[in-house]
Amino acid sequence: MAKLITSRAEDYSRWYTDVVLQAQLADYSPVRGCMVIRPLGMALWENMQKALDGMFKATGHQNAYFPLLIPESFLHKEKQHVEGFAPQCAVVTHGGGVKLEEPLVVRPTSETIIYSMYAKWIQSYRDLPVLINQWANVVRWEMRTRLFLRTMEFLWQEGHTAHATEAEAEQEAIQMMGVYDTFARDYMALPCLKGIKSDAERFAGAVRTYCIEALMQDNKALQAGTSHNLGQNFAKAFEVRYQTEAGEMEYVWNTSWGVSTRLIGALVMAHGDDQGLVLPPRLAPTQVVVVPIFKESEREQVVAAAARIVQDLSPAVRIQADTRDGVRPGYKFNEWEMKGVPLRLEVGPRDIQSGQATVARRTGGAKTPVALSSLATAVPLMLEEIQKELYGAASKRLSGNTRPVDSYDDFKSLVEEKGGFLLAHWCLGAACEAQVKEETKATIRCIPLDGAAEAGACLVCGGSSTRRVYFARAY
Amino acid sequence: MAKLITSRAEDYSRWYTDVVLQAQLADYSPVRGCMVIRPLGMALWENMQKALDGMFKATGHQNAYFPLLIPESFLHKEKQHVEGFAPQCAVVTHGGGVKLEEPLVVRPTSETIIYSMYAKWIQSYRDLPVLINQWANVVRWEMRTRLFLRTMEFLWQEGHTAHATEAEAEQEAIQMMGVYDTFARDYMALPCLKGIKSDAERFAGAVRTYCIEALMQDNKALQAGTSHNLGQNFAKAFEVRYQTEAGEMEYVWNTSWGVSTRLIGALVMAHGDDQGLVLPPRLAPTQVVVVPIFKESEREQVVAAAARIVQDLSPAVRIQADTRDGVRPGYKFNEWEMKGVPLRLEVGPRDIQSGQATVARRTGGAKTPVALSSLATAVPLMLEEIQKELYGAASKRLSGNTRPVDSYDDFKSLVEEKGGFLLAHWCLGAACEAQVKEETKATIRCIPLDGAAEAGACLVCGGSSTRRVYFARAY
Repeated sequence: MAKLITSRAEDYSRWYTDVVLQAQLADYSPVRGCMVIRPLGMALWENMQKALDGMFKATGHQNAYFPLLIPESFLHKEKQHVEGFAPQCAVVTHGGGVKLEEPLVVRPTSETIIYSMYAKWIQSYRDLPVLINQWANVVRWEMRTRLFLRTMEFLWQEGHTAHATEAEAEQEAIQMMGVYDTFARDYMALPCLKGIKSDAERFAGAVRTYCIEALMQDNKALQAGTSHNLGQNFAKAFEVRYQTEAGEMEYVWNTSWGVSTRLIGALVMAHGDDQGLVLPPRLAPTQVVVVPIFKESEREQVVAAAARIVQDLSPAVRIQADTRDGVRPGYKFNEWEMKGVPLRLEVGPRDIQSGQATVARRTGGAKTPVALSSLATAVPLMLEEIQKELYGAASKRLSGNTRPVDSYDDFKSLVEEKGGFLLAHWCLGAACEAQVKEETKATIRCIPLDGAAEAGACLVCGGSSTRRVYFARAY
Repeated sequence: MAKLITSRAEDYSRWYTDVVLQAQLADYSPVRGCMVIRPLGMALWENMQKALDGMFKATGHQNAYFPLLIPESFLHKEKQHVEGFAPQCAVVTHGGGVKLEEPLVVRPTSETIIYSMYAKWIQSYRDLPVLINQWANVVRWEMRTRLFLRTMEFLWQEGHTAHATEAEAEQEAIQMMGVYDTFARDYMALPCLKGIKSDAERFAGAVRTYCIEALMQDNKALQAGTSHNLGQNFAKAFEVRYQTEAGEMEYVWNTSWGVSTRLIGALVMAHGDDQGLVLPPRLAPTQVVVVPIFKESEREQVVAAAARIVQDLSPAVRIQADTRDGVRPGYKFNEWEMKGVPLRLEVGPRDIQSGQATVARRTGGAKTPVALSSLATAVPLMLEEIQKELYGAASKRLSGNTRPVDSYDDFKSLVEEKGGFLLAHWCLGAACEAQVKEETKATIRCIPLDGAAEAGACLVCGGSSTRRVYFARAY
């Protein structure tokens, strides 16, 4: 079965697609650029949703749902926004058999429709802040698509908040970047860089875009989440005003922030290996699989023992037994490895006799026997250990592949030969940024928030710089 | 605040809209026929989803996600299906700035795209059954829309299963009608009639449509969920075949089943009163609200007592304290009543002194004092009691408004004067069914599954009938 997957060394890009398809996370659909999320991929997304939703609610947000179809004229109300999104829209021109007076776009993002409602709901400072999140599908007409990483339709959440002051909106935008970073670290076992996007990479319509950036195993960067301070741009476009306590009318200050099913792609590329998926235990739909091993005459006894283990460990552990007939244990091992299940318990007649099970980790190492009586305490600890190991390995990769660089020549060869993040000085000029992108395909991933001030000279023009920024080739 | 709501007696239809808007379940959007689901409506839907999703998983189903946009030609592959749905479609003709070679319809339902994938995934009897559910948004171009009950876009779930045998598919379709009925009864406190749709009311493309039908307070029926045995109609249209154990190629047997955000409308209309929403405790986002009552000097002490109650009862009970300043208790009482919160606990200084809180039920009756020390046991019991009372009242309404009738004249006057369900004989002829609909606006809601055989004469033509069927005017 492992042969269905190209090795990473041979072709990283094919390896990724093979893993997604063979592990049955997703499949191509007959609709150009759209994928089908299969049950394993969906269960993973649901686990991500559940964790994120809890974090959103803990920070005071509520869920709501806004229309999928948006009048085309709404997009035009914010100048930068329409420039960014109009070329990516799917447009509904006919409905119920007749041509529409005004075309409707399938939402590429929901700022416009949401802020048109906020204009109706927000009257007074007493109505603020409004802290709303939406779980939804969006469509962006992409030319080159890749499963999870860039698809025409994807699932995501989009938070949209309105505040009385600029400072509060700024604090919210930074807070949500922090929520994403915590989620990536604690659930995805994925260390991220935090920072601000350059003007060129900013969300269309935002004043400032905060982001988290992760490193994949091929040393390319992946933007994992963004959080935008929208200032009063949309408030002015949609007349979202409130009466202050002093009785004056003011525009509100907005933020928006989102992560998408792209995170599943990040998870695959951050932890997977040549055998397939490797899932962090906190998100794995199945954390433990029990594989009974027996001759036909021993079937009843061994299957019963496997069932007892499942019963003992549920629901604290997400566990299932693979009791399929007509499938050899070795085949089952490979299949569950490919699907990324963190732990496998093997039970055979001899194990039962000695009151134990044999434990194998997805991440390798010697198989070890564990007494049946201590499984309920040992397994959760092992799962936490694996979670930490994955984070540790990814952190090591991140720090080992983040390099300061001072000359443009060194930069060019490092981008080409090593990849990873390059910490370089930049003059904040759009021309230098564009030249680097043009010549090396590397972009500014983010300007670190907490980067210590350091005087230096721009990589390209030699102009003065006060801090280094992160460059990388990215997905 | 209660004056914002028209009374049911004055205008039931306006009452419904007033409740939905004033309780902030939903709002009109600037997009024709599309609504915004506000946080209270969304929290209600999430509670419904959670309960249903658990029931689907307990019956072996998994979630997946299929594309929103479907090639127009797919709809045409099943003759009845396209006749039913093509006139209702929103059509995407342009994407990424160019005209598409083939238009894409925004899914009105997903049989076609899903069964095209099943054709790829299903090869052998070992791949069956496939038991998949999808939570999604769908769009149907409706001329007359009403909040929750009939909107152009709505949220729903759609189950799609494939089986090796006709009997298994039939069993699945009946099972899922049963799941819906159990959910309506146990969570929504809504008794339903179960049965089969007549040919005229059947889902476009189905062999048999099972349904649950509920009665609203204005004595109109509302279809609350449907479950379709699709036979091999879609399997043949999409070439979904499998190799049997004996090595022969056979078409699979499919079912599909769904419920939608329409259920929120049903909930409002089944239990609401002239003060607003009445929510069954098992689904209420907030089950208990604590309202502290104090003079300014007593503030600290009373608010602290309210906070202690919230802490003591969480998370077993979904409870919150309303500690807003500048809002009188009476105003708070009205607001939480309008929002349907099942129980209110009032705490003032005198309550604290006597170690109690005063409990008021949303459904009425005298306020009663309950010792603070016994709240944690008393409140969950009260909530269960209210849940039962709501079901009891709705059951009484259903049985009191279900009447056997034998002559068409009596039928006509009963439909006009009383409404409710009318149990009448019918010859199974489409002409008689159409005549009743034309002349009385009543339709056959369902043919009961377990209706005792009873010889009789068709209401309209006098032709022979073997059982009574349920007629009603419906939403």
